[in-house]
Amino acid sequence: MAEIERPAAKRRRISSSVVDMQSTIHKPGTIKINVAGAYIIDHGEDDVSQRSGSNSPTSDPELEEQSYTQHKRDIRLPNHTAVVSHVAADIGGSLAKVVYFSRENGNPESGGRLHFLSFETERIDDCIEYLRVLQSRHKQTNGAKATELSVQATGGGAYKFYDRIKERLGVDVQREDEMGCLIMGLDFFITEIPMEVFTYNDTDPDNAVVYQEARSDVYPYLLVNIGSGVSMVKVSGPSQYQRIGGTSLGGGTLWGLLSLLTGARNFDDMLAMADQGENGSVDLLVGDIYGEGMGYEKIGLSERTIASSFGKVLKRKREAERRAEDGSGLSNGDVNRSKFDGAATGDDEAPQANLIGDGRMFKPEDISRSLLYAISNNIGQIAYLQSEKHDLQRIYFGGSFIRGHHQTIHTLSFAIKFWSKGSKQAFFLRHEGYLGAVGAFLKRRPVKWGRRGSVDAEESPIVER
Amino acid sequence: MAEIERPAAKRRRISSSVVDMQSTIHKPGTIKINVAGAYIIDHGEDDVSQRSGSNSPTSDPELEEQSYTQHKRDIRLPNHTAVVSHVAADIGGSLAKVVYFSRENGNPESGGRLHFLSFETERIDDCIEYLRVLQSRHKQTNGAKATELSVQATGGGAYKFYDRIKERLGVDVQREDEMGCLIMGLDFFITEIPMEVFTYNDTDPDNAVVYQEARSDVYPYLLVNIGSGVSMVKVSGPSQYQRIGGTSLGGGTLWGLLSLLTGARNFDDMLAMADQGENGSVDLLVGDIYGEGMGYEKIGLSERTIASSFGKVLKRKREAERRAEDGSGLSNGDVNRSKFDGAATGDDEAPQANLIGDGRMFKPEDISRSLLYAISNNIGQIAYLQSEKHDLQRIYFGGSFIRGHHQTIHTLSFAIKFWSKGSKQAFFLRHEGYLGAVGAFLKRRPVKWGRRGSVDAEESPIVER
Repeated sequence: MAEIERPAAKRRRISSSVVDMQSTIHKPGTIKINVAGAYIIDHGEDDVSQRSGSNSPTSDPELEEQSYTQHKRDIRLPNHTAVVSHVAADIGGSLAKVVYFSRENGNPESGGRLHFLSFETERIDDCIEYLRVLQSRHKQTNGAKATELSVQATGGGAYKFYDRIKERLGVDVQREDEMGCLIMGLDFFITEIPMEVFTYNDTDPDNAVVYQEARSDVYPYLLVNIGSGVSMVKVSGPSQYQRIGGTSLGGGTLWGLLSLLTGARNFDDMLAMADQGENGSVDLLVGDIYGEGMGYEKIGLSERTIASSFGKVLKRKREAERRAEDGSGLSNGDVNRSKFDGAATGDDEAPQANLIGDGRMFKPEDISRSLLYAISNNIGQIAYLQSEKHDLQRIYFGGSFIRGHHQTIHTLSFAIKFWSKGSKQAFFLRHEGYLGAVGAFLKRRPVKWGRRGSVDAEESPIVER
Repeated sequence: MAEIERPAAKRRRISSSVVDMQSTIHKPGTIKINVAGAYIIDHGEDDVSQRSGSNSPTSDPELEEQSYTQHKRDIRLPNHTAVVSHVAADIGGSLAKVVYFSRENGNPESGGRLHFLSFETERIDDCIEYLRVLQSRHKQTNGAKATELSVQATGGGAYKFYDRIKERLGVDVQREDEMGCLIMGLDFFITEIPMEVFTYNDTDPDNAVVYQEARSDVYPYLLVNIGSGVSMVKVSGPSQYQRIGGTSLGGGTLWGLLSLLTGARNFDDMLAMADQGENGSVDLLVGDIYGEGMGYEKIGLSERTIASSFGKVLKRKREAERRAEDGSGLSNGDVNRSKFDGAATGDDEAPQANLIGDGRMFKPEDISRSLLYAISNNIGQIAYLQSEKHDLQRIYFGGSFIRGHHQTIHTLSFAIKFWSKGSKQAFFLRHEGYLGAVGAFLKRRPVKWGRRGSVDAEESPIVER
């Protein structure tokens, strides 16, 4: 996976002056998480899906097959010493994201860290089983008198799988408003976690990624959350927000169409293909319409501007058919010229020749790149137009679609720069897929507020095995 | 083809009071076309691609095979009696549109009519041959002393094929600015042709289509021209315009992706499939995420709202794979589970089983409807946002993508109504694909302005055979 890397020079604990600027989140109705001195820590830079070792329950024989992806960057909370008796899950249309806390090195004085992992929603039972193991570990570590580990749930799946989770785990499942979680999570990352937010501009390739300090003077801003679909949310201040739009052309569209068109089986394969592709073989470019070196510059367009995504496909297919008729061109000459080619008609006997022919004509790499461009450009343009309508200068892109992928980040960033003529800035996050899950984690309202509750420093500390 | 029909009650010559409101276009630098009393006339309601009889040169043995589509509605110009010595062609990325004038019934006093036809741009030679036949007919009818029939060309192809057209026809080819033609054509249809423009609203199915009188108090407005790609143009007054945006997700994207996904060979097949489809089998709906009857209504979304276009594809493919592993489900059990399925890798030996499996899983009708929705919704949303940014109330949709197709018109119209909360209105045109071609036709600047020229009532009249 091509993932944005934090420059080596900056891989350090954040300086104490920055630490001092951080404060403890402590609001009535929300959990007390001490974020003083919080920073990002890479636990496995070379293998994004590796088991995360002793801090994770996955060495447990109860979970033989690993069916999740562990984010390779935890967030260290060196000053949070209290017991945390809840985990959070954000269950979306494609992915279920989990955030949980663990004590560091068995020593309460070392604080702890937040872990981030995701399951495909269709494997929700694996996710629930993972939570069950966390629950049993919690009980084991803290003893029978400890508060039972409860679940904070958000996303559509918090409704769809509510009964199942509650029944399997036998615990309280607290549902949280999806949008509220998203915004609380984003605010947490922006205002509390140094080097979490970054900008991208490859006009200077050596310094394309610029990490940002944590800051709170960011309102109002636009959040563009790209999951299966896309939500756009105007954020006017902490916990002040309004959903202003979105589009159904999102991650689910890219993955769905690419799985049909290229046969690729997972997101990273698709993104790797896109990196190798050349969209000009399927996209109709301005240069294709006007002819080379003629006309397009007069109307202010570049030769490489995409006039029509996939606009070259029908033409190339027909040219190939004509060549086949002439007995030249395709080596497989018996192209099926019936109205439909039978590939999707349920007719077992239909010749597959034409689909094979198509395969030769269009490389999956080119198709992947074209579609990645199309979806990302489109989201970028709609985001810009919404930011204009609502007078917002800063645009944050979150959601599990982005996956730290260079081309995607470049395209979104470029679209904002292009449409705003450089007047607006796109921001990205290193935990972009976990905004809702972190928000749900932070939203925990202690069940026995004011007495022994979800967060209780007097409980016996978790002892890591 | 499902085409918007003019209600039977209104199929009449337009009343004289309306005729009286029309005036003659007569501006310095443009051709004098007498549009007084102009009206739309259906010449072949049952067969959109039929030969149009004696007014067309296609009965000519020189053009044996018909490679064009004749629009089924001409525009009668009962009061234009002068000879017209030019034709117009708007050559886009996918289609080349031609507009020409013919004298009615061999009698100059009967005026004439404008004909509209289109070729696929890849068959540009057929288009040029058609123009050559028109040219030879013109010479035959008007005699050797008549002004040679010249060509007004616009669109990218006016540059790309300039030399070829000029060489084959041996005449002057005058190139016209694409955007200027588009706007001049649209203004002509809006302000001069009664019943050309219509609105669509199927909340009252019996009166969904409402035709509009010709009117000139329409500025400023937004033109959304949907061809292979999409251009959006702000029009502030006659010939005052500015391109403000567009999107590469247009007609070329729909046709290109559908030809890859369904094997359909032409636009009308694809649209007919979309009419039969059910998008809920491939699109992830809000009801799918939240579970039935739970939650979505709380956040103001309908169960049928599309959360993610094609968002259900990957999930259904994987479910089918698991069923295949279990030995149940797909009758074709040997689903290829390699990373890529070989369909598009150029590997002749790759098993095709998975593609056949896909075919069984996803009906081409459902895929067509989903993609038609996705593209049309997206154009509608961007059009709305641009109209907000530029403070425009009226939105006209033109371009050869629409093809009078109900679902497309419904979706675009609904998107404008939805996003603007009913405050903005979408307008459509019955000659939506010919804005640029008509504009180029009207833009003719006589070569010998003030002397015997392109339009010269003293020339001998065309005698129709």
